[in-house]
This record gives sequence, structure tokens and C-alpha cells, in this order.
Amino acid sequence: MVAVAILAAGRGTRMKSDLPKVLHPLGSRSLVERVLDSVTGLNPSRRLVIVGYRSELVRDALASYPATVEFVEQTEQLGTGHAIQQLLPHLEGFDEDLLVLNGDVPLLRPETLELFLTTHREKANPASILTAHIPNPKGYGRVFCDERQNLQAIIEDRDCTLEQRQNQRVNAGVYCFRWKDLAEVLPKLTSNNNQKEYYLTDAVNFLRPVTVFDVEDYQEILGINDRKQLSESYSILQTRIKDHWMAQGVTIIDPGSVTIDDSVTLQPNVIIEPQTHLRGKTAIGSGSRIGPGSLIEDSQIGENVTLLFSVVCDSAVQSETRVGPYAHIRGEATVGSGCRIGNFVELKNSQLGENTNVAHLSYVGDASLGDRVNIGAGTITVNYDGVNKHRTTIGDRTKIGSNNTLVAPLTIGEDVTTAAGSTITDDLPNDCLAIARSRQVVKPGWRMKEKGDS
Amino acid sequence: MVAVAILAAGRGTRMKSDLPKVLHPLGSRSLVERVLDSVTGLNPSRRLVIVGYRSELVRDALASYPATVEFVEQTEQLGTGHAIQQLLPHLEGFDEDLLVLNGDVPLLRPETLELFLTTHREKANPASILTAHIPNPKGYGRVFCDERQNLQAIIEDRDCTLEQRQNQRVNAGVYCFRWKDLAEVLPKLTSNNNQKEYYLTDAVNFLRPVTVFDVEDYQEILGINDRKQLSESYSILQTRIKDHWMAQGVTIIDPGSVTIDDSVTLQPNVIIEPQTHLRGKTAIGSGSRIGPGSLIEDSQIGENVTLLFSVVCDSAVQSETRVGPYAHIRGEATVGSGCRIGNFVELKNSQLGENTNVAHLSYVGDASLGDRVNIGAGTITVNYDGVNKHRTTIGDRTKIGSNNTLVAPLTIGEDVTTAAGSTITDDLPNDCLAIARSRQVVKPGWRMKEKGDS
Amino acid sequence: MVAVAILAAGRGTRMKSDLPKVLHPLGSRSLVERVLDSVTGLNPSRRLVIVGYRSELVRDALASYPATVEFVEQTEQLGTGHAIQQLLPHLEGFDEDLLVLNGDVPLLRPETLELFLTTHREKANPASILTAHIPNPKGYGRVFCDERQNLQAIIEDRDCTLEQRQNQRVNAGVYCFRWKDLAEVLPKLTSNNNQKEYYLTDAVNFLRPVTVFDVEDYQEILGINDRKQLSESYSILQTRIKDHWMAQGVTIIDPGSVTIDDSVTLQPNVIIEPQTHLRGKTAIGSGSRIGPGSLIEDSQIGENVTLLFSVVCDSAVQSETRVGPYAHIRGEATVGSGCRIGNFVELKNSQLGENTNVAHLSYVGDASLGDRVNIGAGTITVNYDGVNKHRTTIGDRTKIGSNNTLVAPLTIGEDVTTAAGSTITDDLPNDCLAIARSRQVVKPGWRMKEKGDS
Repeated sequence: MVAVAILAAGRGTRMKSDLPKVLHPLGSRSLVERVLDSVTGLNPSRRLVIVGYRSELVRDALASYPATVEFVEQTEQLGTGHAIQQLLPHLEGFDEDLLVLNGDVPLLRPETLELFLTTHREKANPASILTAHIPNPKGYGRVFCDERQNLQAIIEDRDCTLEQRQNQRVNAGVYCFRWKDLAEVLPKLTSNNNQKEYYLTDAVNFLRPVTVFDVEDYQEILGINDRKQLSESYSILQTRIKDHWMAQGVTIIDPGSVTIDDSVTLQPNVIIEPQTHLRGKTAIGSGSRIGPGSLIEDSQIGENVTLLFSVVCDSAVQSETRVGPYAHIRGEATVGSGCRIGNFVELKNSQLGENTNVAHLSYVGDASLGDRVNIGAGTITVNYDGVNKHRTTIGDRTKIGSNNTLVAPLTIGEDVTTAAGSTITDDLPNDCLAIARSRQVVKPGWRMKEKGDS
Repeated sequence: MVAVAILAAGRGTRMKSDLPKVLHPLGSRSLVERVLDSVTGLNPSRRLVIVGYRSELVRDALASYPATVEFVEQTEQLGTGHAIQQLLPHLEGFDEDLLVLNGDVPLLRPETLELFLTTHREKANPASILTAHIPNPKGYGRVFCDERQNLQAIIEDRDCTLEQRQNQRVNAGVYCFRWKDLAEVLPKLTSNNNQKEYYLTDAVNFLRPVTVFDVEDYQEILGINDRKQLSESYSILQTRIKDHWMAQGVTIIDPGSVTIDDSVTLQPNVIIEPQTHLRGKTAIGSGSRIGPGSLIEDSQIGENVTLLFSVVCDSAVQSETRVGPYAHIRGEATVGSGCRIGNFVELKNSQLGENTNVAHLSYVGDASLGDRVNIGAGTITVNYDGVNKHRTTIGDRTKIGSNNTLVAPLTIGEDVTTAAGSTITDDLPNDCLAIARSRQVVKPGWRMKEKGDS
Repeated sequence: MVAVAILAAGRGTRMKSDLPKVLHPLGSRSLVERVLDSVTGLNPSRRLVIVGYRSELVRDALASYPATVEFVEQTEQLGTGHAIQQLLPHLEGFDEDLLVLNGDVPLLRPETLELFLTTHREKANPASILTAHIPNPKGYGRVFCDERQNLQAIIEDRDCTLEQRQNQRVNAGVYCFRWKDLAEVLPKLTSNNNQKEYYLTDAVNFLRPVTVFDVEDYQEILGINDRKQLSESYSILQTRIKDHWMAQGVTIIDPGSVTIDDSVTLQPNVIIEPQTHLRGKTAIGSGSRIGPGSLIEDSQIGENVTLLFSVVCDSAVQSETRVGPYAHIRGEATVGSGCRIGNFVELKNSQLGENTNVAHLSYVGDASLGDRVNIGAGTITVNYDGVNKHRTTIGDRTKIGSNNTLVAPLTIGEDVTTAAGSTITDDLPNDCLAIARSRQVVKPGWRMKEKGDS
């Protein structure tokens, strides 16, 4: 078993934000949630999050985290060594390994951490350090090894000679310790340095031999200190996600312009057009073409659906349905197969059967529509009387005329036709025609006065 | 004369698709169509497409190809040599050159192939091979030459020594043969190798001397084996197209976010804003500003048109007209010059004269509008009675009031005014005012009951 | 004091445009305006713009430039030396420094020019030349120095030996001269060269010693000769702007897809979603989330506003308001705090109070709405009678029913309710209910004839 400690006490001044750095979202989850998620496969016995700056916000944000998280307060931020020192009372008698992660390094893959831990256990040294070869190592501590690939020295960038600075192997700030050994040396740390901080690297230096473990993809160790790095990490994450789905047989026409949350699932032969964003628990069926210019959030899209320049949230659209351009489906709406949801149409909390059309300029809210219903252009369901919401029900094969106003609560039967321009206020039985409009009056010879006419 | 053979028998397993790989679209055309198009300038006497996996789909897809295509079945896929062996009965007595192309290598420029063929003929060797110097040659067969730039050896990546692997000159899999010479050696191929396949490179090895022809832009030889390579090839193709139009005097503000089909034509001084997609047989006139966030497909746009956040399909918009945001013009609609098509407006299969406005929230379908017509906001043409479509005709200078419902078939004269909120069901002569709405009734002192009121 | 000369006489043939090259816009300003703006901090005593091709257009474009600009005609374009010769009559008796800039090199930072000028003055040489180390120097004149970093020679690319071509230090075409010294040598220039042009570099060669000043960021010296370079310079400019705002605490989720004019101001903790464009004098308050797919131009957005897939021009939206998707706010509209502007809604030249909702498919133009007003879906303000525009006023807490047509001029009181489907033509007092629609008539047993029915 392993305990995991996550350093999450810093403010992150360069983020220019009152929000603790580890709570900034990277896609659908905060940095610290991502770090916590990355260790799920290790099945840790303890998850200790070291909090400091506005710690109540971090506690709140993780309150509903699906595994038990313990919070350790670091009231002053006196360095990484000081942070880990705070664990001493919490891990008294603990006799296993401790994995130390940074709350602002969210791109480490679970399989990397598993391999790191396995290697640590196989080598059976008191400490292991995770390293990477970075093209531009400026600012990172450099890691030097002996011929057996054990740690010789970690030298901070500012202390490196010109020659040492050429070394591209850097310290990722990720460690695994035999806790008993670490606990013994932690009290010996001092802050006799320029920064007046207690460094965890000093603890590493007290322990020997130290295993050095190289991560293959250096991007995994990139940390986030400012908004530019946040955007760069997001881009790396997105490339991973999109490469994954392309390998699974999804066509993405301009991957750089598309964002896909890691909670999304796509079937093979989905086509994603440019500037499309798939978020939350969204699933898209085979053969569907999504975009350009669309946003789908927490929604289920069936097979062979086409959807362009549209927004779908918290809803479901079944197979062979065509959506858009400029449709908005939301609020637990469900659309059957073979439907047509056209331009300037909003569906909210409504259920549509099969082969039903709402093709133009309509608002359908709190309504149930059967199969083969046709809603004329410009039709509005009046679901709100200013105080309460009411439902509209429309039977199979009914044809609502254009520019109709349907005043709910309202039940319209099957095979009904309503005349264009009607305001329907009362229920309608099956097989009827309803008209509610005025007769046309013509005043011949009338012509509007132009500007300047006397 | 030259015969062209295109290898198109493979499934393309890594595409994760039931569609044969060569039928996947790259922009507006499939891979195999692009390869066929690239040889048009060679005016080949024969076009032989070697098909295998789901060959009926490839045959169907090319049924309407504008030149004669012969299909050669390769029932088992036993390698490139085996594929070309299938040509033997088809090319009996053929006495010219054979150009061999891959159906999944769609970026070769016509001028490259012309130069390759010319060089092959000038050198008058039995075979020529097309090569490129690739930055990352991993996976490619390396090509080694003697001092006269004739082929010495092609060595597969896996068979290369470390030193040989440094050679960045790779085999593009594109060959030109004197057919008679090739036909002689083809029967000698064996499958005595790890893959148990018949290699065309073995045939090349039987023929000497072999001309080696370097393509300058290595991107031309990139093949497509998976969806990521498909997206990368699309990006290369798009860069070519956009660079071409920029050189012609088109401003593209953020080229990376724009896609333009190779069938599109643009005049100088067009400005393309970000996230704009031009597809099919679209043409755009000088001085027009298109986008951001627009899609134009198979449409003609005149000069000095502005169009933003809009979709235009199968339609024409004349000069000086302003469109959008959020307009949708489709279904053979034609819009005259100086018009204003505003937000949330759909035009379908309608003809608009000059200086006519449909500025807000309207559906105009199956209608003919004259010059200087004004359509009030929220107006709907009721073109569909649930069974048939009918037309609406509106004369010059007529002003349709807001929220009108125009029930087709309907003919409205010139200089007509209709009152706001009217449903117009009967034809209107010139110079008249039409009203079809109810009188207003007021109930004073009335106030809606709030929630919780008793 | 310093005088500034800007070379702006060329046509820029490769732009393929009748517009003089320096008038092409780079974001919100033309090239020549950007160059003029870059010297503002130098507080120059003279700004001399050397014009030639269609000089009247350049004069017009700079007519309202906020500092005094003098135009110097170069009727024939005979080279950079010839251009500067035209200054001789204008600078007679001038006894200070002359800074020479190119009108098509718009990315030089003001601080770079300040440092260049300071260095020129400190070194007190008759001339200084600005250089950069460029990764791909092809086409540029190479600059060679002696051991004291004084100029030894400028050699044009075509005249370089292979070895000289390796030198990546290039001439940026930006000079500072002690005018008296330059004025003396200018008449000595000849056009005895292949191009038959008078070169300013020849003048530099007559003056010794010449200070060489390296700019750190070589991108500053990139010039614009064609539309591709225009798009590349725009991208560089955009990266600068977006990096600046990210450093200030703005989250930009996909910076590459976003454009931000340099006249925009953003508060920390703004979140910019992909494909969003901020233009003109736009300001956005803290905590607001803008995009995806939005365009905001010359508008003020308050704090904690959410706005997606929408267009806002020349308007203001106050805090906590939610906008979109598919809303269009324009024409000096102002929206109070806590409002909801929903899909397919256009606001034009209207004032909305607090907590007012226009949630669906409405056009509100030339209207004043109070607090807590609710506008039903599909409602249209009829502000235009075909000749004049009229205003609509709606009091606090009033509820306009769905699909209403409000015929302006119209004043509706407070706490009014209008029935769905009504056309309101006359003013309404406080506390009333207004109905203007027809009674519903039902024809039972009526069923639409299907196609093919007899």
C-alpha cells in the first residue's frame, strides 16, 4: 500500500487570482482533482492534501470527491520540505511508501505513476525521484546520476555551472519515499538558504541510494504557474484526447480547433467538423457528423445524426435526426429518430417522438409531441403564465400551422390541423381543424406616406 | 502514352472503419479520386484501379468519374507485387510506360508526376522510383544510390543498420516502369519473407538501371493510414489552398481556422475572417468580407458583400448585400444587390430583388420578392399546407408588417402595406392596406396572481 | 528631438491590391498607423511620411491622425535612397537626428525604438543601423561588424558568398542618422546597379563609424510584402496581446483560435472560450465567461456575465447577465444587471433595466424596458412603420405575452399583462390586462387530405 501526499497549499501568485492555484479548472476538472484522479489506479491507503492558502476553498471543492481525502494544514508556506513535515503527526506509525505529487502538475499519466511506484519497490531504495529530459530545461533543477543510475546530485538552475546547465535531465518534483526513512530525516531540514525555505530535495540528499526514474514523455511533468502554462497544458491534454479518438476511428477535420472533455465517448466513424466542443458526459453514435461551430454538453447523440452550428445541453437526440443550423436543445429535451430540428428553434424540457419536425423559428418548451408531428414556422408554446410553467401535449400526425401561439396547459389530439396565425387556448380533440384568427380587411387605394410627403 | 495503376485494394485497418481506406474523404473528394485527378494532366491511355476489400463500394464511388476507369480485382491482398501481377492479363500487348500510384497517397502534385514521367522517359531506363528526403524517415524503406544517382538498393526500415537508418531518402512507393520489362520480371516474384508477401520492390531490384527521382516537397508523398494522418494531410492540403489564395490577393485573417475546398474561387481583396468554411463550387467577389463563423457551400457571393455568422448553401447573393449574423440562405435562393438579410432569417428557394430587406426573425420560403420590399420582423411565409408547397409573390416597394403570417398560395401587389400582426390569406392588389387582426381589449385593474397569493 | 521619416510610397505589388500596401489593416489599424503609433513615445518633432503610389489615399487615411503628419511626395519610386533624398528641401536647417522607418514593418516595439535612439545618441556616431539575428535570413542584406561592433559592411543576399550567407545578422532597414551628416552624403548617391535604384545603404556606407544595434526579438523586424506575411504578422501581434492578458490573469482556453484587438481591456479572471473575437474599444469585467463563438465590438461587458455564441456591437451589458446562445445586441443597446437575453433575440438601441428577461425569438428595437420585465417568446416591437422609427416603453414588472406584436409608438405601464398572441396598438395604463386576439373556432372531424387522396 502507498500513501499519497499532494502539495496544494500555494496561492499561485502568477495566476493573478484569489482562487488557489490548484482549483483552477483544466478542462472539466480542477488541477488538484486531476492529480487525485491520476493515483486512483494505485489504490492508495491514504490521500493527504496539504492545504494552506484559502484552504477552506480547497476543502469545499473536494468535499464530494469520490474517495476519502485528508487535509493537512500548512499555515505558513515555508517550502516543500516544510509542507511534508506537516505530515509527521498524521503518518505516525505508518510503515509503507509515500508518493509525493504537486497539485499543479496535472498531466502525469496513471500508468507513469504505476511504473514509478513499481520501480521504487523493485529497487527497494529509501527514495526514488521522477525525472524527465526537457528540450528547454531553464529554471528546473538538474539531476545528475552515477553510472548505476542512482542519484548523485540535484542542482538548482541558479547554482549550475554553464556546463551543468547543458544537462536536460530535470527534477519533476515527484518522489516516492520509504516513509520511515523520510520521517527520520525530515526534522533535520534547515532553511539556511537564500529563499529561507525548507527544501524536500535536502531530504532526498540525506537518503541514499536514490533511484532515478525517467518519464518518457516530458510533457507529463509540466507544471502550471500562470495562465499561459494553463493554456499550454490544456492543449497537451486535448491532443492526447483527440489522438485517442482518432486512433479509435473518429474523423476530426481540424483537430486544433476542437475541444473534447475526457468524459466524452465517441463511436467510430463519427465526424467532428471544425470549431466543435464536446463537454461533460456526452456520447455520440457512429456515423454522426457534428459541427462546425457546435457545443454539446452532457448529451446523448444517436447514430447518423447531423448537427451543425447548434448547441445541445443536458438532452438526447436519437438517430438519423438533423439539427441546425442555429438550433438550441436543452433542459432534458429528448428528440426521437428521424426528426428535423431546424434553424432558430429552441427545445426545452420537451419530448419529441419519431419523424417530427420543428423546422423554423420556434420555441417548444415543456411539451410532449408525438410521432410525425409538424410544427409550423414561428410557433411558440406559451409554457409560462408569468408565475407557473404548464405543459403542452400534441398527438401523432398533428400539423400546427405557422406563427401559432399555443397557450399551455393545452392538450391537442391526433390528426389535428391548426390554421396559420392562430392562438390556441383550449384543448383540441382528435381529427379537427382549429382556427383562431381574424378575417382580412382590405382598404384599396391606400398608400403609405413617404418621408417628405405633405 | 502512359497507363496508370492505382493500388486501392486495402481495407486500411487502422482507419477503424468498414469503408475501404481509399474512399475516405479528404476535403471534398475521396483519397482515390484525388489520386485519379492528379494524373489528369498526363492524359493516360488507361486508368487501372486495383480493388479488393469491398471492391463494389470503390466501383460505385467511381462510377461517375469523368474519365474511363478500369477495375482490376485483387481477391487476396498478398502485397504490392501481387497487386501489380493482377495487371498482366489486362495489359497484354501493352507497349508503353506504367505509372504505379498508391490510392492512399493523395498529396502528389500533378506537376510532380509530369516531371517524374518526363524524367523517366528522358533517362530511358526500365524503371524509375520516386523518392523524398523526410525529416523523420522512421518506418520508410531507405533508398541508396550510386554516384550516377541510379538506384543501388531499397532497404526496409527494419532491415537497416543503425548507419543506414540515418539516410533520410525514402521510397515513396511511386514507380514508373517500361511495362514490357516489368511484365517479364513480375512472374519471378516470390513471397519468401517474413510478411509472406510479394513485394513490388523486388521487381524493381530485377530491373537495372533504375532512375531515382527526388520530389522537392516531401509532404507530397505522405500516405494515410489512420485518422490522424488523414487530419494532417488535410491540413497540408488546406495550407496549399490558402497560400494560393493569399498569393492571389485574398486576406485571410487567421488562416489556421479557415477551410477552403479546392473547388472554390475567390477574387482579390476578399477578406476571410476566422472560423469560416468555404465548400463546393463556391465563388466570392472582390471586396467581400466573409465571417467570422460562417459556412458557404456551392454558392455565389457578389462583390462587397458582408456576411457574418451565417450559412449559405446552394444559393446566390449579389453585390453590396449584408447578411447576418445568424442568417441561413439555402435551397436555390437568390438575393439581389443592396439587400439586407438580418439575424434569425431563413431564405429558402426564394428570389429577392434589389434593395429588399428581411432583417429579423423571418422565414421566407418559396417566395418571389420584388425590389425595395420590406419584410417586417417575425414574418412567416406559410409555404406548406401539410401536403403541398405553395408560392408567395410580393411586388415592388411593398411593406409587410411585423409578425405577419402570409398563407400561400398568395400574390401581393406593389406598394402594398400590411398591418403588423396580420394573417394574410387572400391575394392583395396594388396600392392597398390590408389588416387581419383583432381589436385590443383592456381589462383595467387586472393583476396577475403571484405565487403564494391566495 | 528626433524627426521620423516613414517610407510609405510603394504599391506593394505582391499584395495584389489597388490599395497602397501601408493602408492594409493589421487588426484594427493600418500598417502605417501602427508605425506612426510606435514612435509616439519618442515624442518626435516631425513626422514625415514619404508617399507615392496613390498618395491621396494615404493622406486621407491619416487625415485624422492624432499628431501632425507631414507628407513628402516621391513621384517616382527609385529606391530607399531616393525616397530619403526627397526630405532634403523639407529638413533644410534641421539639426537633429532622423529616424528612418518602413511603413510596412509594423511590429517594432516602442521600447525597442526608444532603446535604439538612446544607443544612437550615446554612441554619438553619424549613423546607427538596427539589425536582428533571423533563423532564416534568406533575402535579407547581411550585416558584418568589426570587433568593436561597428558596421563593416552590408552585403545584399544576392551578392553574398556561400560563407557570408551563413551570417544570420540582417539589416532591418531601420536607421538613425545625424541629419546634417546624412544630408551631406545624400546627393552623392548613384543608381549604378542592377536595379537602377538609389540605395540608402550606400549613404550608410559613406558615413563612419556606424553603430550596429541588435534587436532581441527578431519578429519585430518582419516586413509585410504579401497577404501571407500579413497573416503571419497578425498572428505575432495576437500572440503578444494574448500573452499580455494571460499574464494579467485572464484565462484563454484556446488562445490560437481567439483574436483580441490591442484596444481591448480585460479584467483578471475573465475566461475567454475558443473562437471568440474581441474588437475595438471593448472592456470585459472580472469573472465573465465569453464564448465560444462570439464577437464583441466596441462594447462594455460587466462582471460575471456569461455570453456564448453571440454578437454584441456598440452596446453595454451589466453584471450577472446571461446572454445567448445566438443573441445579437447592437446599436447602443444597454442591458442592466441580472438580465437574461436568450436565443434568437435581437436588441437594438434599447435600454433594459435590471432582472429583465427577453429569452426567446424576439426583436426589441428602439425600446425602453424597466426592471423585472418579462418579454414572451416570439415578441416583436414594431418600431418602423415603413417611413419612421418609433419607440416602445414598458414599465417595471410588466409581462408581455408570447408572440405579441407591439406597435410603436407605444407606452405600456407597470404591472401590465398582455395575452399571448396579441397585437398591442394602443397605450396601456398600469395594472391592466390587454387582449387582442380572436376566439378559437373548432371544426370537428376535419382531416387534411393526403397527397394522392381523391
